[in-house]
Amino acid sequence: MTAPSDKTRVLTGITTTGTPHLGNYVGAIKPAIAASQDPSVQSYYFLADLHALIKCQDPKRVEASRLEIAATWLALGLDTDNAIFYRQSDIPEIPELTWMLSCVCAKGLMNRAHAYKAAVAENEEAGNQDPDKGISMGLFGYPVLMAADILMFHAQRVPVGRDQIQHIEMARDMAGRFNHLYKGQYFTQPEAVVDERVQVLNGLDGRKMSKSYENTIPLFVSEKKLLKLVRKIKTNSLEPGEPKDPDTCTLFQIYSAFATTEETAAMRTEYANGIGWGEAKNRVFEYLNAHLREPRERYQALLEDPGHIEAVLRQGADRARAEAAPFMDRLRHAVGLGRFV
Amino acid sequence: MTAPSDKTRVLTGITTTGTPHLGNYVGAIKPAIAASQDPSVQSYYFLADLHALIKCQDPKRVEASRLEIAATWLALGLDTDNAIFYRQSDIPEIPELTWMLSCVCAKGLMNRAHAYKAAVAENEEAGNQDPDKGISMGLFGYPVLMAADILMFHAQRVPVGRDQIQHIEMARDMAGRFNHLYKGQYFTQPEAVVDERVQVLNGLDGRKMSKSYENTIPLFVSEKKLLKLVRKIKTNSLEPGEPKDPDTCTLFQIYSAFATTEETAAMRTEYANGIGWGEAKNRVFEYLNAHLREPRERYQALLEDPGHIEAVLRQGADRARAEAAPFMDRLRHAVGLGRFV
Repeated sequence: MTAPSDKTRVLTGITTTGTPHLGNYVGAIKPAIAASQDPSVQSYYFLADLHALIKCQDPKRVEASRLEIAATWLALGLDTDNAIFYRQSDIPEIPELTWMLSCVCAKGLMNRAHAYKAAVAENEEAGNQDPDKGISMGLFGYPVLMAADILMFHAQRVPVGRDQIQHIEMARDMAGRFNHLYKGQYFTQPEAVVDERVQVLNGLDGRKMSKSYENTIPLFVSEKKLLKLVRKIKTNSLEPGEPKDPDTCTLFQIYSAFATTEETAAMRTEYANGIGWGEAKNRVFEYLNAHLREPRERYQALLEDPGHIEAVLRQGADRARAEAAPFMDRLRHAVGLGRFV
Repeated sequence: MTAPSDKTRVLTGITTTGTPHLGNYVGAIKPAIAASQDPSVQSYYFLADLHALIKCQDPKRVEASRLEIAATWLALGLDTDNAIFYRQSDIPEIPELTWMLSCVCAKGLMNRAHAYKAAVAENEEAGNQDPDKGISMGLFGYPVLMAADILMFHAQRVPVGRDQIQHIEMARDMAGRFNHLYKGQYFTQPEAVVDERVQVLNGLDGRKMSKSYENTIPLFVSEKKLLKLVRKIKTNSLEPGEPKDPDTCTLFQIYSAFATTEETAAMRTEYANGIGWGEAKNRVFEYLNAHLREPRERYQALLEDPGHIEAVLRQGADRARAEAAPFMDRLRHAVGLGRFV
């Protein structure tokens, strides 16, 4: 099967359990939005809200996260005429394909999944008699859902972190097995794309910025809150006038992720010249705030108009289903579940 | 949540991998069709064709089986105005619910499923290093799909064999867990109904009639083929004139499953009087053939008109989805996957 267009098909899922923060922006959202403007690429971005159910059973959190993430991407300029932007849960063909793939996916493959093995190891370390304690079938089987996400749209390239490479290999395995069993080139083999240049931003405490460390700076907080958070960024006890090392400094790292090369070089000089932490924090706040003001205004306006976001996502789902529905028809016929006439 | 009507909701799935035989008819189809005529019952019968993919990866077999089973039930008089008769694969809400239930279903529950444990035991006996050899995620997780089948329609009673009671308990477990987590009475707890009186018919070789023993008499073979198969039923070497024991005789068992009490008593006397096997077989063939002639004609006519079967099943799917679609909307809202407006 050839892809419906000559463009390279790139697919990215966004798990909907958190609120987008500066780390997400720098590491994932900004490069993805840039990539979506490449005319040789057909991008698929989706809110992975079925995946969210695995780790978050707080409906209010899932609901809010979906809205915040959608508003964030739109506020930052995702081109939804070009990219196909949809909610996973709006595509009923995805769970249907998940079942079909389950029937060609060896259980042994899932036994070897990193996330599952890590959960078992945690149980064993904690001395639990049942190594599967607290592990749901959703957690155990989610690489099959992920394979359905990817294979449904013949994605050729899937940008992932190192820890996700295994999942792409599993999707390749299921694709190959299905193609072999049902004697056809139904699925395209996806490739994992690991971008080693992806910037990992540090959080307030100097560790990687992450929801689980509670050290994030949300992307679109109020000015007042942003200032408060920037002031909380951990620095050292050097006094104004003493030269400071930018390369071990979270504040500098955050600044440079947003600033131009020239601005970054200028700040480096300021560090060498002994800029005080209070002054540096004010400068970084001013810079971030200037940078984020406009998208923040768009973000707030979008949040106040969920009907617009809904319409955009439904349009994306229509485009996605225009591919998924006929493809599922073909797959149903392939496995013996076609219509009788 | 109360069921949409006061009728008792009874749900039965029919796996679509085989061709209906006399054993299916006596043990399952006949009592189900009778039950479907009970005005106090709302019956749901479905072709479990997603389940079929677990054990049959021959699309032609699955396709033919679905058509044959649908034609059989219709030919035997299933009242589709009363019963809701549909193909599982026509209800996209079923795999969607399967995923939601996966996220509340402990993996440990599946580890203890009889079918899975039997497959592992077989691997261990065969000395396979991998206890999960040949076990797919479909086989491992199918009790979750079965729970979705049942819970989607608030089935209150599910007629099952003893080996299936565990699956109903699992469905109850998932229903309870979901209701608890998401704070509502979303699902009805189903009850397993084991009818101890269900007749198990023996096959040509005297063992239980079953596709896997290749000892079946298909329900709607040609007259000529039916005669040939009845003649193959295993009997003993007693001569005409010698009294014969009806109670250990497969031929007698098959006859009595179809005949009235009086006819059965009369045949019992013939056995005592030493009826010859050739004569007895002719009598049984004549009886079966007379009994099956009309539905066989209807069956053949139906097979020649797959468009009609398709229309009947689509109508059943429409009725099923009229319940499933709004219920899934409610469930999506419950877990945080509702629409934004």
